[in-house]
Amino acid sequence: MAKYAIGLDYGTLSGRALLVDVSDGREIATSVFEYPHAVMDEELPCGKKLGRDWALQHPQDYIDVLANTIPAVIKESGVNPDDIIGLGIDFTACTMLPVKADSTPLCFLPEYEENPHAYVKLWKHHAAQEHANKLNKIARELNVDWLDTFGGKISSEWLIPKIWQILDEAPDIYEKADKFIEAGDWVVWKLCGKETRNACCAGYKALWNKKNGYPPKSFFKALDPRLENVVEEKLGPVTPLGEKAGEVTEEMAALTGLKPGTAVAIATVDAHVAVPAVGITGEGELLAIMGTSTCHILLGNEEKQVPGMCGVVEDGVMPGYFGFEAGQCCVGDSFQWYIENCLPQSIFKEAEEKGVNIHKLLREKCSKQKPGESGLLALDWFNGNRSVLCDVDLSGMILGLTIGTKPEEIYRALIESTAYGTRMIVDTFKENGVEVKTFYAAGGISQKDPMTMQIYSDVLNVPVKIAGTTQCGSLGSAIFGAVAAGAANGGYDDVFEAAKAMGKVKDTVYYPIEENVRIYDKIYAEYKTLHDYFGRGENDVMKRLKKIALEG
Amino acid sequence: MAKYAIGLDYGTLSGRALLVDVSDGREIATSVFEYPHAVMDEELPCGKKLGRDWALQHPQDYIDVLANTIPAVIKESGVNPDDIIGLGIDFTACTMLPVKADSTPLCFLPEYEENPHAYVKLWKHHAAQEHANKLNKIARELNVDWLDTFGGKISSEWLIPKIWQILDEAPDIYEKADKFIEAGDWVVWKLCGKETRNACCAGYKALWNKKNGYPPKSFFKALDPRLENVVEEKLGPVTPLGEKAGEVTEEMAALTGLKPGTAVAIATVDAHVAVPAVGITGEGELLAIMGTSTCHILLGNEEKQVPGMCGVVEDGVMPGYFGFEAGQCCVGDSFQWYIENCLPQSIFKEAEEKGVNIHKLLREKCSKQKPGESGLLALDWFNGNRSVLCDVDLSGMILGLTIGTKPEEIYRALIESTAYGTRMIVDTFKENGVEVKTFYAAGGISQKDPMTMQIYSDVLNVPVKIAGTTQCGSLGSAIFGAVAAGAANGGYDDVFEAAKAMGKVKDTVYYPIEENVRIYDKIYAEYKTLHDYFGRGENDVMKRLKKIALEG
Repeated sequence: MAKYAIGLDYGTLSGRALLVDVSDGREIATSVFEYPHAVMDEELPCGKKLGRDWALQHPQDYIDVLANTIPAVIKESGVNPDDIIGLGIDFTACTMLPVKADSTPLCFLPEYEENPHAYVKLWKHHAAQEHANKLNKIARELNVDWLDTFGGKISSEWLIPKIWQILDEAPDIYEKADKFIEAGDWVVWKLCGKETRNACCAGYKALWNKKNGYPPKSFFKALDPRLENVVEEKLGPVTPLGEKAGEVTEEMAALTGLKPGTAVAIATVDAHVAVPAVGITGEGELLAIMGTSTCHILLGNEEKQVPGMCGVVEDGVMPGYFGFEAGQCCVGDSFQWYIENCLPQSIFKEAEEKGVNIHKLLREKCSKQKPGESGLLALDWFNGNRSVLCDVDLSGMILGLTIGTKPEEIYRALIESTAYGTRMIVDTFKENGVEVKTFYAAGGISQKDPMTMQIYSDVLNVPVKIAGTTQCGSLGSAIFGAVAAGAANGGYDDVFEAAKAMGKVKDTVYYPIEENVRIYDKIYAEYKTLHDYFGRGENDVMKRLKKIALEG
Repeated sequence: MAKYAIGLDYGTLSGRALLVDVSDGREIATSVFEYPHAVMDEELPCGKKLGRDWALQHPQDYIDVLANTIPAVIKESGVNPDDIIGLGIDFTACTMLPVKADSTPLCFLPEYEENPHAYVKLWKHHAAQEHANKLNKIARELNVDWLDTFGGKISSEWLIPKIWQILDEAPDIYEKADKFIEAGDWVVWKLCGKETRNACCAGYKALWNKKNGYPPKSFFKALDPRLENVVEEKLGPVTPLGEKAGEVTEEMAALTGLKPGTAVAIATVDAHVAVPAVGITGEGELLAIMGTSTCHILLGNEEKQVPGMCGVVEDGVMPGYFGFEAGQCCVGDSFQWYIENCLPQSIFKEAEEKGVNIHKLLREKCSKQKPGESGLLALDWFNGNRSVLCDVDLSGMILGLTIGTKPEEIYRALIESTAYGTRMIVDTFKENGVEVKTFYAAGGISQKDPMTMQIYSDVLNVPVKIAGTTQCGSLGSAIFGAVAAGAANGGYDDVFEAAKAMGKVKDTVYYPIEENVRIYDKIYAEYKTLHDYFGRGENDVMKRLKKIALEG
């Protein structure tokens, strides 16, 4: 009798359930529910205005996802809930909320419904920047040894700046909150009535480390004496990925149509969960989730300090491995910027006349170019640089322009620049003893842009494999759900086994073309020189121009 | 009784006559005649195909300009030809042709009409590049002292490479040509039956120098033994600007309607002739003729070596002065490139909705930006760099791009980059002891783009005056015509007096705005660093990319 697992993928604007066959990962049914409150960045439901850079969510939306999507996939698939053996959840991170000891969000309490700090702070809530800046300054002064593990700078998106902002701006909320918790862990808590914290969020977003735990009290005290005991008082123990968190309660079974007692996996982060979804089960296989930006995940056997990575977390991606994360701030974003701000009318006219989509026409034109033919070289820093320079004040550049330069040449140069940026990351991993043999691509770009994938293969000089599904998040979560159920219940005892059976790549693999590799090697050498010249302090013109733009 | 002079301005596609009042330069009548043969870059009139990079003209077209435009301005103005006291001619250069001793072009002879080398080689005939390369190599090997006066590299557009190409590819034409002459000097010869050669063409385009004459025989012999006596055999003595060449012959009077005996001035070059047309009469006043590219002319009292200028010629612009020339390869060309290749549909739509011209809308948007606000910085090398780097292999760059960058910000950055390029030239003159106090702008951009003129004033931190006419060439030629006539005939004895009376600038002067100067000073410092980094050998990435584009 076939068994099934459900993966729940919580994105920025909606949640998705995917019901898959546990034996081979075959996707049987899927359902999406858009958050009724979406992202609250201007006002609360009560009409209270929010400040600049705020981004909140309403936790009721997450429960509504469960109530809507799970019944929908059960219905659509016609599967008997008895055969649904497990459930996994992935979520954006750090997306956090203050809750009572019984898991009730503070914003559910009438006395706090008008207080913005009682709601969920979404990953892209940037109003804690000031607190992040202070944290970085103090950490640097104290010469803490963990700062460089995170690229030397803690983001305002992470947990501690967000908690500190609450303490500073709404001390009563800080006081009344029994816990601060990641939204993914909160959904798991709601499902099985048991508080857990996943190693992925804790390690990549909350300064936790398997060996050393959280930073010591002295550090938190240095931030603010009231924070001294934040770990003991407001956080909690961390569980490795691949574990079972608990079982679906009667109440949640009634809400979702699942069988009470169905296994629920420890939550994880929406990017990192894609690793088992493409069948990666060991070191040397780098996964890039390519969209507006790119997130890179790589497994290793040992903890290594790799300059400019976003973090390395033991058990944070796959149990027993160190999961390295790196990132590029601007990938699809710069292509979209180009199309909106630079694509000339002539191309639009041509697309209209030929009756083709603008992206398709542009890629068609780009495909006719040979590597190096345009003489162009760009730096892909349109949103600053995450890895390996960790510098938000860098900016984009394009060089080699002539009055013969064609639009499609600029577009291709932007694509190539993101491939060079990826190679810089890959080379940095290699130089620091972390192997990269194969490149896996997931996310929108990987699915619809073969030209870009060939460019990546040529620039990186490695085979590029493509995710076998557009739903890597929910498939990955379903894999963790099948593992939480265990082999005895028709699932798997180990996530590697599950990933091998259920993870998928497409048949098409992009192999490097020797002649292209030869030329891209030359151009990459030029990229590297300019990368270091502008990025490592030799000429800080980008920063000075930004300062002039802000201050005159 | 009012007196009049006619200026004849020979451009690339047409010739123009302008009849002006000698007392104040007032423009009375004008007439344009388009060359029937235009630019012959594909085939001869007989159908014979031309090679790549050829650009020829037909000398009959120049005579047709006389026959059409002079009668037209006489008729339109109603002026009595007895009151037209002088005539001046300016021409593109080096635009040269082989002629017989009686001034007959070889292409007029039936036996040569199918030989491309018998025709006029237009300034932009680039098929002598190989000969220019050889000339530069040999000059460098011989360590000649004049090479650096011309920016260290002789252009394929100049006279000697063009003559050498004829010798090599059509030795019979070389043999049968009694003279090689600039087209401007040839028109003067036809008008007054007397061969002269103007110092402007000779000095800027034919390696002539007032003190030393042409390079010695040994140099020409080193190029090719058959060229040893080229100067004595095929060229001729040089006359300073501001002199009278001769008087209109009976035959030419019949053709044009002018009175026989009307004074004809020594010819000059279409850019340089604009100096008296804006009333410049001494040192320290730099004229920029701004169009697709920019040509800079500056008078000085002494010969100075200024790195990267195009040439310095005594008597070559105004008699008694050293005329310095510099240039920027790409000004309006890069703005036009931007509009054709990068301007997004949204701007076109907005222009359509508002019912305004696209250039106007773009400038309107740019005008709202404050200096430095965009954070962008560009290098204006879209056609290479003429002054001060003399390097055709450099290319354009733009830096500071983010996903917030707007189209009008890029457009403004391109404009600013050309102003920085101009400042680099001005600063180089100053650093080498050639004063620049005021900046005069002529040409299309100066007439219709106040924003650009203000940017130039702010970047250069000098007042910017604007040519008082769109016809600087023909007005300048008319001034030389009035001087050729002399005071005794109602004209002037000296070109400085004539320029003061007849030259014109607009009432509007652009003065530097202190706050803008302060910011542009900062950004120019960044431009200079990148200019030197990419342009002076520290990082030859632009050249290497060009090589990869050509060779893979």
